[in-house]
Amino acid sequence: MSDVYEKVMELAKRRGYVWPTSEIYGSVAGFIDYGPLGSMLKRRIEQIWRQFYVIMEGCYEIECPTIGQEAIFIASGHVKGFSDKMCQCPHCNEYLRADHVAEGGGVNGASTMKEDALSSAISGLPCPACGKVLGEVNVFQFNLMFRTMIGPGSQRVGYLRPETAQGMFTDFPRLLRFYRDKLPFGAVQIGKSYRNEISPRQGMIRLREFTQAEAEIFVHPAQKQHPNFSRYREYAFPLLSSVQQQKGDPPLMMTMGDAVRDGIVANEYVAYYLALTHELLVKIGVRPERLRFRQHLPDELAHYAADCWDAECFSDRFGWVETVGIADRTDYDLKAHSGESGQPLTVFIQYPEPRREEHRRVVARMGLLGPRFRDKAKAVADALEKATFSEDGANIRLDGQDLVIPPDCYEVRDEVVEVQGVEVTPHVIEPSYGIDRMIYAVLEQRYDEDEADGEVRKVMRLPAAVAPIQVAILPLMTRDGLDTIALDITKKLQEKGIMAEYDDSGAIGRRYRRQDEVGTPFAVTIDYDTKETGTVTLRDRDSMKQVRVAVSDLNSTINDLISGMRTFSSMV
Amino acid sequence: MSDVYEKVMELAKRRGYVWPTSEIYGSVAGFIDYGPLGSMLKRRIEQIWRQFYVIMEGCYEIECPTIGQEAIFIASGHVKGFSDKMCQCPHCNEYLRADHVAEGGGVNGASTMKEDALSSAISGLPCPACGKVLGEVNVFQFNLMFRTMIGPGSQRVGYLRPETAQGMFTDFPRLLRFYRDKLPFGAVQIGKSYRNEISPRQGMIRLREFTQAEAEIFVHPAQKQHPNFSRYREYAFPLLSSVQQQKGDPPLMMTMGDAVRDGIVANEYVAYYLALTHELLVKIGVRPERLRFRQHLPDELAHYAADCWDAECFSDRFGWVETVGIADRTDYDLKAHSGESGQPLTVFIQYPEPRREEHRRVVARMGLLGPRFRDKAKAVADALEKATFSEDGANIRLDGQDLVIPPDCYEVRDEVVEVQGVEVTPHVIEPSYGIDRMIYAVLEQRYDEDEADGEVRKVMRLPAAVAPIQVAILPLMTRDGLDTIALDITKKLQEKGIMAEYDDSGAIGRRYRRQDEVGTPFAVTIDYDTKETGTVTLRDRDSMKQVRVAVSDLNSTINDLISGMRTFSSMV
Repeated sequence: MSDVYEKVMELAKRRGYVWPTSEIYGSVAGFIDYGPLGSMLKRRIEQIWRQFYVIMEGCYEIECPTIGQEAIFIASGHVKGFSDKMCQCPHCNEYLRADHVAEGGGVNGASTMKEDALSSAISGLPCPACGKVLGEVNVFQFNLMFRTMIGPGSQRVGYLRPETAQGMFTDFPRLLRFYRDKLPFGAVQIGKSYRNEISPRQGMIRLREFTQAEAEIFVHPAQKQHPNFSRYREYAFPLLSSVQQQKGDPPLMMTMGDAVRDGIVANEYVAYYLALTHELLVKIGVRPERLRFRQHLPDELAHYAADCWDAECFSDRFGWVETVGIADRTDYDLKAHSGESGQPLTVFIQYPEPRREEHRRVVARMGLLGPRFRDKAKAVADALEKATFSEDGANIRLDGQDLVIPPDCYEVRDEVVEVQGVEVTPHVIEPSYGIDRMIYAVLEQRYDEDEADGEVRKVMRLPAAVAPIQVAILPLMTRDGLDTIALDITKKLQEKGIMAEYDDSGAIGRRYRRQDEVGTPFAVTIDYDTKETGTVTLRDRDSMKQVRVAVSDLNSTINDLISGMRTFSSMV
Repeated sequence: MSDVYEKVMELAKRRGYVWPTSEIYGSVAGFIDYGPLGSMLKRRIEQIWRQFYVIMEGCYEIECPTIGQEAIFIASGHVKGFSDKMCQCPHCNEYLRADHVAEGGGVNGASTMKEDALSSAISGLPCPACGKVLGEVNVFQFNLMFRTMIGPGSQRVGYLRPETAQGMFTDFPRLLRFYRDKLPFGAVQIGKSYRNEISPRQGMIRLREFTQAEAEIFVHPAQKQHPNFSRYREYAFPLLSSVQQQKGDPPLMMTMGDAVRDGIVANEYVAYYLALTHELLVKIGVRPERLRFRQHLPDELAHYAADCWDAECFSDRFGWVETVGIADRTDYDLKAHSGESGQPLTVFIQYPEPRREEHRRVVARMGLLGPRFRDKAKAVADALEKATFSEDGANIRLDGQDLVIPPDCYEVRDEVVEVQGVEVTPHVIEPSYGIDRMIYAVLEQRYDEDEADGEVRKVMRLPAAVAPIQVAILPLMTRDGLDTIALDITKKLQEKGIMAEYDDSGAIGRRYRRQDEVGTPFAVTIDYDTKETGTVTLRDRDSMKQVRVAVSDLNSTINDLISGMRTFSSMV
């Protein structure tokens, strides 16, 4: 299957997984619609993500607006730094990513070149759109945030958020109180993010509007041992460390315990979320043999990050695709927001016992300051707290003037004080998931073809946990009451929250094929025996095997099969 | 409780239901953050909505981008008509809704006045912000859509969607194929919508970014009998029809069967979704005595709509608040998009049997047309199909010229043809839910105070189906292994997807109060008897009664209580 991308996307469009957006007006690059089945698959993946992070990890979800005020993105660095280098072809007027043009022309290191250097580097290269040599072109920065105005009269600039993460930082003081002022704690957000890509051309891989699921775990900087690390100590999967990459070697299969011990992964928190991510991706249907974790190289790693890994899913079309990022971002984000907002974003960590610390205190003699400085005496006294001292006295700055206060006006006391604790800026561990890329990976990796009834069978081998339609209910005939029984079974399953689809149109073989193609894991067929024995056939999509099950057991059987409590093979 | 709003919002902020957005930078009016509990409440309400619409009704969900291209909103009328009349105070520069200023000053019919009339009407009124008389002010239209640019170089205008509905219309051809070209069918969308309000000042009631859940049910224009109407024929609730309103009479308690029979509700489809909405709102916690359905008055009803009702929830602060709208929008939306896009948005309805219809056909005699019109002969022949006829011959228009084609050049044949069916533009029934207003209604209506241990107890009486934390697990002491047992119980519940919160801090009474306040319906206490008898106490939030339950039965008991399969009172 060399062109599996074409096959998957054809099936996805035809069956209602993914559609071009607002197609009747000509779709817009970088935007997609999830159709009925795609939307359901997405919901289920999000629900599994929530089961892992919100319910099991106890990282509560919050929901912030997608439009944010400018100050947030000044602090985060997006206003200044979230841009691509762009140019416009002078011949065909197409907008181009200058670094991509350079890379396409064999220029090395294009992604880190400055505007001028890029401009010269591409002047002799052809425009990828029209083929003419570009010549002298202006290369400029294009900010990738969508910009809008909040309220009338251009009162206030707003941006569509480029990531959900900032909400957890700006809500930090409220979250801290919610978690009763104790570390560690985490919060998550699942929602839309936006990047105004210059010319997105990779289907679901590079979108202008996409869904992220991000967790921010706030930890004590000196306590990066995960309290539940034993869960993953012996869990192993392929790690492509920066050392392996620099040596040109393949990934190493390692347990998380070994990876932390050998210093390959920075700490237990990062390792814990690497393993949790591996478990989660496999659960939604990513194939383990097409999943690896790649560490950022030293020149790729953000300057503030202590460590960063990408979970990469292999695509026959796109190669290894970055799908999840897991980083130790240290205290960068909280310090940036604290600086911009002027609000303290710290946690008071109480010492086990109060500590006695030496402390120098400057006590003003108001009796002498008063007559000399009159209404400024109080300000002088305050300024003394931050004074520097010389033989002449204390040097202070007041109303823009440097003053020297003679030694008789104050007293310096070295005291020993009792300190209860310290204000600490937490470090942030951030697992960040690209939901749309996860969906694409699952669709591509789970697409399969085999043979049934002497014909090619297209089958989406989705895990039952994520399949949009969970069970198909098929009356063999639409007469003799078989359809009534089937409708009744459908309704009873739906009442329990199971997505059961009734289908009575066409030959039974054709109906099976249709459900195989959309990935429905189980099919129930109501036949003439049903009326006599009260049983139906239950068919497994992957093996195409069938067993008879009592109608009265159907709800619990289907439920157990979907939740993974039981396997079909154990029933055959 | 005259100021229940203040009390509810204080609790909502303190406990993590709703927070001002990006508060560290000073929040922005019209935007809110859902905190950990609010976000969970919202998820549960959305899940119940999906159980009703997606699973039970079979209206599949789709997910379209929040940014849409301009053509969509030209067709929908939002580019031209989605605006408010605004003015700016010449003294304090505050932007004002001109119609609100007029209404506040006792001017009647302000909402339908033109700009000039409004300008004169308010010139003598004081500015609500600074109090000075406005004088001569310019009243102008302000479009309420957030605008942005897609791609570099201002290439393409995009708008943040003002409603989710348009996605179901632009995807109509794909949806129709998904539903195998048959009516009726429905599709839904849950997601963010945006309205750039001029000066929103009503907390969660008027947001610039909000969540909608909208269903579009496509039906045959001549078949508005709902196939499942019997479900609600005898279902009754208060209807405030336009007639009742015009007479100044109160709502009438009516069954849906009677309401349709008496012509109060336009058809069974509208009535069906009124009743379903009533059932859904009550299920999430809206009190029936604070819920009514109000019909749009003739001058309020959109010109294309056949009928429209608002589900209104009563708020002590805001009065009756429109929370859900249910309308029969006829074929307005599909025709508008078909006209703008040039794509047919119709369904081919096959006749039960082919019909014989008379049909006039004009057949060109090419042998005569050829020599006379040469290379234009083909175009003349095509034009003849739409010609009008007079004694002189056929009048056609060709390349901007009117021509008369003599009768010898063509032949008119009246034929009887067999017609298989007809292209029909479906009508649209639209239930549209404002999720944020539903959440506010539930929070306000379920806030309560009673007495416990001689003190005032604040309690959120949320239905178990929507409560964020479903069960609190409280060890009486954090020693003698009680905490270990409690943690184990917590984990086992979480593994089943139940949101269980472990809490061991503070006196047991204080922990109950905390859970009461956030609305947790059940609390499990692990005490010294647990070690001996293997039982725990299970406490009911509302009655504060307790029963002992075996630890081994806890998972299924909690599950049954949350799903409503069992009631606590049946266990006492």
